[in-house]
Amino acid sequence: MSSYPHSIKNNKPQRKIEVCFSPALFREFKNPEAIAVVVDILRATSAIVTAFMNGVSRLIPVETLKEAEDFKKRGYLVAAERDGLVQPFADFGNSPFNFTKERVSGRQIVYSTTNGTQAIHEAADCHRIIIGAYLNLTALANWLISQKRDIIILCSGWKNKFNLEDTLFAGALAERVLQNPDYYTICDSALASIDLYRIAKEDLLGYIEKAAQRYRLRKNNLDDVIEYCHTYDQTSLIPVFENDSLIPLKD
Amino acid sequence: MSSYPHSIKNNKPQRKIEVCFSPALFREFKNPEAIAVVVDILRATSAIVTAFMNGVSRLIPVETLKEAEDFKKRGYLVAAERDGLVQPFADFGNSPFNFTKERVSGRQIVYSTTNGTQAIHEAADCHRIIIGAYLNLTALANWLISQKRDIIILCSGWKNKFNLEDTLFAGALAERVLQNPDYYTICDSALASIDLYRIAKEDLLGYIEKAAQRYRLRKNNLDDVIEYCHTYDQTSLIPVFENDSLIPLKD
Repeated sequence: MSSYPHSIKNNKPQRKIEVCFSPALFREFKNPEAIAVVVDILRATSAIVTAFMNGVSRLIPVETLKEAEDFKKRGYLVAAERDGLVQPFADFGNSPFNFTKERVSGRQIVYSTTNGTQAIHEAADCHRIIIGAYLNLTALANWLISQKRDIIILCSGWKNKFNLEDTLFAGALAERVLQNPDYYTICDSALASIDLYRIAKEDLLGYIEKAAQRYRLRKNNLDDVIEYCHTYDQTSLIPVFENDSLIPLKD
Repeated sequence: MSSYPHSIKNNKPQRKIEVCFSPALFREFKNPEAIAVVVDILRATSAIVTAFMNGVSRLIPVETLKEAEDFKKRGYLVAAERDGLVQPFADFGNSPFNFTKERVSGRQIVYSTTNGTQAIHEAADCHRIIIGAYLNLTALANWLISQKRDIIILCSGWKNKFNLEDTLFAGALAERVLQNPDYYTICDSALASIDLYRIAKEDLLGYIEKAAQRYRLRKNNLDDVIEYCHTYDQTSLIPVFENDSLIPLKD
C-alpha cells in the first residue's frame, strides 16, 4: 500500500491541495485564497497550452456558441466545437494540432469548448486561475509550490461526469506538489487521483485506452491527439486567466 | 495493468453498470430503467442493513431534522444525526451498533443522516432503489445480476464530495457484477472504482486510514464502527425503498 508522508502533519502551518472531479462539484470547494488549476487533458487545456507555445498573444474563453459566433462576426479568429465537432461558423475546433505557429502566432483567439471553458468560469472566485496539461506539468508544479498557497485542481470532466484522463493528470500534479513539505492533503479525491496515476503512469496511453473519452474521440476519428496530449514537459509556459482572457503568466 | 474483458463487447444486448460519485452528480445519470444502489459505508447504509438484520420492520428515511423531530413527537423511534453527532430529540444516531435486536426488532424507525437519506431521495426516479454495504455485498451482486437491468451505484460521498470508502465499495460491487457477461461498463467512475478497490482490497482498513471520513469519525470518537462496516457478507437481506420506506426485499 502507498504511503502519504504529507497526509497528516504536525502543527506547522501548511498549504493544502485538493482535487475536484467535476465543475458541478466545485461549489463545495470554494476557497478564494486558493489557486485553481483547470484541467481538460482531452483536449481543451492541452490545446490552450499549445496555443501559447505557438505564440498566441491572448485567448478569450467563452461559454456559449452564440458568444463565439458574435466574436467571429467582429473579425476574431474563433475556435469552437461541441462534442468534438467543429462548429460551422468557426475557423477551427479544439485540437491542439489546429493551433499552429503559422495560424496563431501573435493573434488573439476566441475559444469555446464543451467542458474546458465552462470550468474556467466556474473557478472565477479563486485567487488565480491557471491552465494545466502534461505539456507544462513540471513548470506548473514548481510555480505552484513557489506560490505557497492552497491549490484546487479542477477537472473539467465530461459533461459534468468524472473522467479518467483529467483525474490521472490531477494525480500526477498532486504527487509532485506533495513532494514539497509545505503541502498536505486529506482530500479523498486527491488521494484517489494519486493512486490511479501510480497505477497508470508506466503506460499512460494504455491506461487511457479504457477511458470513455477515448471511445468518444475514436467515434469522431479524432484520437490522433491522445498521444500528444499525454506528452510531458514541452514548455514552461503557464496560461493564466486575467480580465476575462488567458495570457501567458509573467511572474 | 488491469484488463476489463467486459468493457467493450460485440453487439449482444447487454446491461451497463455505472458509478456516480456524488448525489450532486446524479442528475447526469438519470435512467428510469436502472436499479440504483445507494451506498454510504460510513455509516448510513451499513446501519440500515444492520437494522434489518436485527429485525426492523420498516425504516422511514427523512431528509430534514424537522421531519425527524415531527415523527418523534408522533411516537416513532427516531435515529437522527448531523456530522456524526446524535440530535438531542433523537433516540439514537446512525451507528450500526445502535440498532440492536433488543431495541429495534419488530419496530418501525425514522432515520435521518447527513448524506445517506438525501442520496436515497435523489435516486427517486429510478426503477428501484436498494441499499448496499459490505454486510450484504455478495447477496446484492447476485440479486442485481438476476434482474438483468442497468445498474447505477450512487455513492453518498461526504457533503456532496467524493469519498474513498463509498468508492471502494462501488468498485467491489462493480467488479463482482462485471464477472457476469451480461454486464459491461464504459463508465470512467466505475473503472476508477474497480482499480482503487483492487489496490485496497488486501488491506481495506489500512487503506481507509487515508480517508478523510476516518479523521472526521476519529474526531468524534466514533471510529469503532469502521472495522464492522468493512465486514463482508453478514446477511443476504437487501433493503429496498418502496412507498417512501425501506423494507426487506421479498423477491
